[in-house]
Amino acid sequence: MAQAQLTIDLDAIRANWRTLDALSDCETGAVVKANSYGLGADRVAPMLAREGARRFFVATCEEGADLRKALGQGPEINVFGGHMAGDAELIRDAALTPMINSIEQMLRHAESLPGHPFGVQLDSGMNRLGLEADEWLALRDTAMKQKPRLIMSHLACADEPNHGMNAHQLRNFREMTEGLDAPRSLSATGGILLGKDYHFDVTRPGIGLYGGLPFKEAHRVAALHIPVIQTREVQTGESVGYGNAFVARSPMKVATISAGYADGLIRALAPKTYLWAGETRCKLLGRISMDLITVDVTAVEQVPETLELLGPHQTVDHLARHIDTIGYEILTSLGNRYARVYRGG
Amino acid sequence: MAQAQLTIDLDAIRANWRTLDALSDCETGAVVKANSYGLGADRVAPMLAREGARRFFVATCEEGADLRKALGQGPEINVFGGHMAGDAELIRDAALTPMINSIEQMLRHAESLPGHPFGVQLDSGMNRLGLEADEWLALRDTAMKQKPRLIMSHLACADEPNHGMNAHQLRNFREMTEGLDAPRSLSATGGILLGKDYHFDVTRPGIGLYGGLPFKEAHRVAALHIPVIQTREVQTGESVGYGNAFVARSPMKVATISAGYADGLIRALAPKTYLWAGETRCKLLGRISMDLITVDVTAVEQVPETLELLGPHQTVDHLARHIDTIGYEILTSLGNRYARVYRGG
Repeated sequence: MAQAQLTIDLDAIRANWRTLDALSDCETGAVVKANSYGLGADRVAPMLAREGARRFFVATCEEGADLRKALGQGPEINVFGGHMAGDAELIRDAALTPMINSIEQMLRHAESLPGHPFGVQLDSGMNRLGLEADEWLALRDTAMKQKPRLIMSHLACADEPNHGMNAHQLRNFREMTEGLDAPRSLSATGGILLGKDYHFDVTRPGIGLYGGLPFKEAHRVAALHIPVIQTREVQTGESVGYGNAFVARSPMKVATISAGYADGLIRALAPKTYLWAGETRCKLLGRISMDLITVDVTAVEQVPETLELLGPHQTVDHLARHIDTIGYEILTSLGNRYARVYRGG
Repeated sequence: MAQAQLTIDLDAIRANWRTLDALSDCETGAVVKANSYGLGADRVAPMLAREGARRFFVATCEEGADLRKALGQGPEINVFGGHMAGDAELIRDAALTPMINSIEQMLRHAESLPGHPFGVQLDSGMNRLGLEADEWLALRDTAMKQKPRLIMSHLACADEPNHGMNAHQLRNFREMTEGLDAPRSLSATGGILLGKDYHFDVTRPGIGLYGGLPFKEAHRVAALHIPVIQTREVQTGESVGYGNAFVARSPMKVATISAGYADGLIRALAPKTYLWAGETRCKLLGRISMDLITVDVTAVEQVPETLELLGPHQTVDHLARHIDTIGYEILTSLGNRYARVYRGG
């Protein structure tokens, strides 16, 4: 087996969902777009449905259709991208609830699927998805008569609790929705942590479920173990890997392990990344290849069968910091070649 | 359809294979690891087999087993990672040819699958995969008696024709293999372009097939079109996207399109990336979200249904340059949510 193993702790995801659920008095859904941030929506969503989640969120109707197969009938599947041209059949057959983002989408929905459930996404200031205030004003009375399943918006700066944008968007969302007879939702993980004012009727945790910041108390969910293909002695002055990017300054022992940038281990990670052999920290050497990484295991007497990239010693957020990105990207980049192994559930 | 479309031109891949094949007098194989660099080995490999390729190269036995299903019996499937513990069944059932990288792997192969075909990978200086010179010396006579299907090594600096490492590795490879009765292979795309000395009996083009550098004459293979979910007017002073990372200095029109870093569009691309609306270049605004990107379409009168990220205006190598990486990484990062549409074949 040169196949690396991505271990996903479903019990940890459940515990994270419970904790985030307990932080509000309202209903708690779950964001499972991008295949549950790369961890497997077909396993994560049914487990959370058994736990009590009744609303799931995906990005596109195609994702929604796949998710319906995994969930079966019952739970509501909300589609952030809304109702795009050509989506009517998917929406009907998979019983999806598109979040309407524009007047164009509202018209399309009303014409192609009259009476079919929908929600409304409002732009409260992020200028990314959703109806602008004036569009909503024009559409509101008609839309409300059809009893939308959800009225939602999304925060641009929820990861920064002190950012003035949060209060600004909260105010806008309230103004646009005050007194309307439909469940309202403003917050994903970051918003849940901002407190009660941001919770409304439904929260939508995503990254927090999967063990990532800004939910500091999250249980760790993902572990990644990469098989050692071989080890070799490298002499002073010898180079390792592409472009001779690393040159040994003293005799050392180098392990070649079986994963690379085609597995989502972003090349930019190379200069600052370590892996673990048991309790020993081992520096990544030279460049990350498509399928291979070379690692300094000089300090490891008995090189184990696998080295650990994610696990007790290191989270997606640690890796993200090295390359000025966010844990979300490290997670969603994890590729197809890993054996995904589930614990608990 | 909020699903973006990745169009893969199989005719272009065929033409690239032919051109690379014509550059040498020897046999030309094809590297189809990492799912043909993200473009679909189940479509690419059978097409190249019809074209005459008889040897395919993958990274792991798991990839090899999938490839065998697509190829059927006949073509040789060589596995760079060699024979790892637990691989015997896959190797036997899928008729794989592991490239033996170490004495440990040779013993494992001889014990678990006596008589089963194998190749040998030698380390000619890259210190990543393959037997060291002294290991090969110890193993050579035994190995040669079993008639290895291939003896190969890999160049570390083939993308830099003037790098001294090329001649150094060539010399080492010759010394280790001179006079041996087995087909020899040293070169992938870069090595093919280094000329006849580097060709030996089998070449193994990879990136060149898929339209990437260092094969400058390659036909373009991949095009990526991302659906516009909605457009909006943004006023001076308003921000767009996460972290308010972009603030409009004048009134503008912004399109939100349906792809993001979960689709392999690396977040670091944001500051320098443009998309095309027909012939109009449109700047990416603010941050890349997980599923969404915001784009300045102020100059576009009639916003089309999709914007183009890869295509006639821009290749994976253009994108790669913006973030100091290589086209290979842009290609292999392209994710699962795209509709992969094939042209030709």
